[in-house]
Amino acid sequence: MASPSPPSPQFFTPHDLRLACRNGTHNTTTSFTTPTVQCNLLVLPSRYASSFTQLCERNPVSCPLLYSTRVGSPTTPLAPGANLTTDLPRYNVYKDGKLLTPHGIISVEEYWTKDHVGFLIGCSFSFEWALSAAGFPPKNSLCTPVKCVPMFRTRIPLSPAGEFTAGCVVVSMRAYKERDLAEVRRITRAFRRQHGEPVAWGWEGARILGIEEKVRKGIVDFGEWVEIDGDAGEIPVFWGCGVTPQVAVMESEIEGVVISHVPGCMFVTDVPVEEEMSNLKLWSAEFM
Amino acid sequence: MASPSPPSPQFFTPHDLRLACRNGTHNTTTSFTTPTVQCNLLVLPSRYASSFTQLCERNPVSCPLLYSTRVGSPTTPLAPGANLTTDLPRYNVYKDGKLLTPHGIISVEEYWTKDHVGFLIGCSFSFEWALSAAGFPPKNSLCTPVKCVPMFRTRIPLSPAGEFTAGCVVVSMRAYKERDLAEVRRITRAFRRQHGEPVAWGWEGARILGIEEKVRKGIVDFGEWVEIDGDAGEIPVFWGCGVTPQVAVMESEIEGVVISHVPGCMFVTDVPVEEEMSNLKLWSAEFM
Repeated sequence: MASPSPPSPQFFTPHDLRLACRNGTHNTTTSFTTPTVQCNLLVLPSRYASSFTQLCERNPVSCPLLYSTRVGSPTTPLAPGANLTTDLPRYNVYKDGKLLTPHGIISVEEYWTKDHVGFLIGCSFSFEWALSAAGFPPKNSLCTPVKCVPMFRTRIPLSPAGEFTAGCVVVSMRAYKERDLAEVRRITRAFRRQHGEPVAWGWEGARILGIEEKVRKGIVDFGEWVEIDGDAGEIPVFWGCGVTPQVAVMESEIEGVVISHVPGCMFVTDVPVEEEMSNLKLWSAEFM
Repeated sequence: MASPSPPSPQFFTPHDLRLACRNGTHNTTTSFTTPTVQCNLLVLPSRYASSFTQLCERNPVSCPLLYSTRVGSPTTPLAPGANLTTDLPRYNVYKDGKLLTPHGIISVEEYWTKDHVGFLIGCSFSFEWALSAAGFPPKNSLCTPVKCVPMFRTRIPLSPAGEFTAGCVVVSMRAYKERDLAEVRRITRAFRRQHGEPVAWGWEGARILGIEEKVRKGIVDFGEWVEIDGDAGEIPVFWGCGVTPQVAVMESEIEGVVISHVPGCMFVTDVPVEEEMSNLKLWSAEFM
């Protein structure tokens, strides 16, 4: 008799998933479809906290800031008991803009100092359950094994803020039938701090974003490629993506140690998406 | 003996200026340097109010929403007693996307129906006094007669919201010496709901915005051209501009009557800029 399979990720509770990440036995949150808010993580030396907060304020579609930690404290009321230095599947660590950990690491306890501030930024994974529930599951979640969404760096610049003067908008892509576009826009529009409705769609949208060739050839900048079936009437649909601030920080020559999640390896909170949506100001950052 | 000149605009109070606009005896707010908040106006049929509010939320640098009126009421607590149908210098009126008033008109009383909602959006004129006070007066304000700032349509798309799926970011341009850039950024950065710090600068910035050729040749889309003196070390500096939502609305095939100000002909409020800056939530829109 075959040994039982490990539980499918969607059967974890958020708490159990975080524990599995802490123990190193689980390594992605892609297609983890429990409807609690998932977040991008970015950890900066405190002297950059004010500028980074304004970067988020000025680019809310790419960088919807949900919470910033107290200086030095890797905890958050979005998931009481969680530890931001251990409870994400994998992390990237940079020093003076250079990646120290090319394969990702499963704990950053040794890097998070008393001078670091953690920022939690909304993630489009938070609305994938709503798309699935409405009969529009993202194709990447139907793959076996599940794939991470494809992500692309566009040519659209961010609005600068203080030291953060570089970087372009990053988008995630999901293919949908053109006739479903209005409904897909409507569903995701409600997720105002999880990137909301798409920023562009179709091949003309890809052209405007400056990524038509990459999308036609399936050359992703992050995540995994998922086919677009033009014969079935599918077009690419592009949403804002929380990898954007990561790229902005890397390209802005920030000094010191910076920590982020590996794309697709998010922080899963305990906050039901519905609650977050009805309390847009509740989790406002301390640095606002 | 020559007859006395009319008072220079900066010696009007906001109230007197609005009355002069109402009477048709004054026709610009450019270089009106009293430090009260100036606003862009956009008036839409009420069925578009929710989408337009989200357009502002998703594009806060271009479209910093300060206030939206009650349906049908052209009044605002930002200037008690003022009438938004008469107190701006000049208006544009559009029907089904077509401009009805190519030369602007001085009152829109006959167009503002019980179904219209007015949106007041922050304007960079609000920070010109601060630049002047710090020794960095915009060159356009030093011209005789004063000029309106040059404005350009960029290739940077807005984040769509509902019906508003078209339009690109519009920027105002002021030339500054490169060595003054950091200080000019710092001063305007504080004006978070008046477009804040620049979105781009220098010739590389112009290239990224897709307007290098227009700026080099002095071909403006709105406002008036003001020379950039490269020999004196000047570079172009670009700020977000409240003409952006006007262009977005015009290009999004909105049905019915839409009203806006003529670029450079703003609504001058009674709100001291300092007060607005310290009460970022005070004037929040009713439709948020």
